[in-house]
Amino acid sequence: MGKIAIVGAGLIGQAWGAVFVAAGHDVVLYDPIAGVADGAAPKVLARLQDLADHGLIATQEYRSQVSVAVSLAAALEGVIYVQESGPEKRDVKAALTAEMDAILPPDVPIGSSTSGIPASSYAADVAGRARCLVVHPINPPHLVPAVEIVPAPFTAAEVTQKVRDLIAQTGQIPITLKREIDGFVVNRLQGALLIEAFKLLQNGVAAPEDIDRAICDGLGMRWSFMGPFETIHLNAPGGVSDYVTRFAGMYQTMFEGDTKISDWSAALDQGLTSYLDALHPQDSLPEAHRARDLKLMDLLRARRAGGRRG
Amino acid sequence: MGKIAIVGAGLIGQAWGAVFVAAGHDVVLYDPIAGVADGAAPKVLARLQDLADHGLIATQEYRSQVSVAVSLAAALEGVIYVQESGPEKRDVKAALTAEMDAILPPDVPIGSSTSGIPASSYAADVAGRARCLVVHPINPPHLVPAVEIVPAPFTAAEVTQKVRDLIAQTGQIPITLKREIDGFVVNRLQGALLIEAFKLLQNGVAAPEDIDRAICDGLGMRWSFMGPFETIHLNAPGGVSDYVTRFAGMYQTMFEGDTKISDWSAALDQGLTSYLDALHPQDSLPEAHRARDLKLMDLLRARRAGGRRG
Repeated sequence: MGKIAIVGAGLIGQAWGAVFVAAGHDVVLYDPIAGVADGAAPKVLARLQDLADHGLIATQEYRSQVSVAVSLAAALEGVIYVQESGPEKRDVKAALTAEMDAILPPDVPIGSSTSGIPASSYAADVAGRARCLVVHPINPPHLVPAVEIVPAPFTAAEVTQKVRDLIAQTGQIPITLKREIDGFVVNRLQGALLIEAFKLLQNGVAAPEDIDRAICDGLGMRWSFMGPFETIHLNAPGGVSDYVTRFAGMYQTMFEGDTKISDWSAALDQGLTSYLDALHPQDSLPEAHRARDLKLMDLLRARRAGGRRG
Repeated sequence: MGKIAIVGAGLIGQAWGAVFVAAGHDVVLYDPIAGVADGAAPKVLARLQDLADHGLIATQEYRSQVSVAVSLAAALEGVIYVQESGPEKRDVKAALTAEMDAILPPDVPIGSSTSGIPASSYAADVAGRARCLVVHPINPPHLVPAVEIVPAPFTAAEVTQKVRDLIAQTGQIPITLKREIDGFVVNRLQGALLIEAFKLLQNGVAAPEDIDRAICDGLGMRWSFMGPFETIHLNAPGGVSDYVTRFAGMYQTMFEGDTKISDWSAALDQGLTSYLDALHPQDSLPEAHRARDLKLMDLLRARRAGGRRG
């Protein structure tokens, strides 16, 4: 465990603070706007109290601490990692990253919470750019485990690995991209679904509440415990290759002229079959179906307990 | 409550049987392949037992009954509704629907479980086509509440309403499409996300397990209790119009040349703002954020109880 600086103490920075403190790290908050970090410290503690009240962390007695720094240099003193959570503006991130790079010892990684600005666009001119990368959480960060780790081409492999290990140690779930792409993985998946949702609404196919229900009372229930690939692996008797054989053509026809579709059968040999066969081998699909159904029943029970029908 | 015929007694028909029996209807199973319906009846009861064992239905003592018919005519005798769950083949559905239409009194709706064949493509030549429509569940139907109701242009409005009311009475959640479209709403949303997931894999952006995690440890958690529109309404300080102002351009750039994007700002006045403002008015957004966070904490607790990290 070590000291971690949160630079930029808004909502995302506060939630990151809770993540790191809950994992036993000391956290120092800094924000260039006077007073913001002072106001943020009690909000970090409130999130921790909330997690404790809801049985998600063992105790509200932390050995690690939250402190507030009056200058960037003071914030970066002795830290093992910086989570930059500043404004979503390329130029601001470029200047801030260069400033931190000039202060920090060379082995301290600088991760940015940006949801859409690749490190190569704001850190390419930073002397110590090899320590810079994107570490993008999902809102609210202390309650959604997935964290995208997006190295730039110039990010050192050992930096990426070190940050991945740190994120995993906090209990968050790192998703490492092999290369930069606009929107990373999370917002590309969300964007693809949103684009279709807006089209369905604007083409008069369904009311917005019905489009929402197709997800929250339908597809989203399975997706809360298994991803889209695992879902289709369990949606055809012979697993994913059977699903691709049965349905790739249907999806192709559905989006004809609207969206370019890749060759799904080729994907099977590009890691998809080996991943899914390791997860649920062909001869254990019935057990996997049963496990899925048990999880759906857990979800249904929780919904009913919460007063929700269906 | 009344008698309901399930025509086609495979996995989907069996699950429908459990849905209708749990809601107090008598169910009669029929399958043109000899022996299939006989084998299906105990499987309907097993699903009901499973629901009872997991606290999802009050009792395993049902006043309503499951029976098996030896002929289509016998199956349709005295029913208030038919849920056709036959093979996913247009010609088979066309012949079967015509045959049922010739037997049934004119006021009995015929819903098809098809996931992709619109009623206008299999029922246009059926004399009583006004009673025909698609009633598409999500797998497994007795554990996922959303059901798409897709009338053809020739489906009578009162038939659509009657079937919608029946589905709602069972505790499932009807999603009514205003017009037919290939893939309906559910599979278009799933397809849009799958197409992007396959592309990310095939373009070498991330490993398949990391793409799955972006959903099951990320986006899918929120989507299990709120749809994509409600999600974005809570992801910008000023609600959905603020979100569209901030992010529509980002998504536009992300998919440039790959996917046609509609004008999201126009959607605001096409029912989106009025839906979301009624759901969470601007001045109650903080309470909505809090309700979201409480549901995420419930989910996290359930995941940990199930041995899952994060």
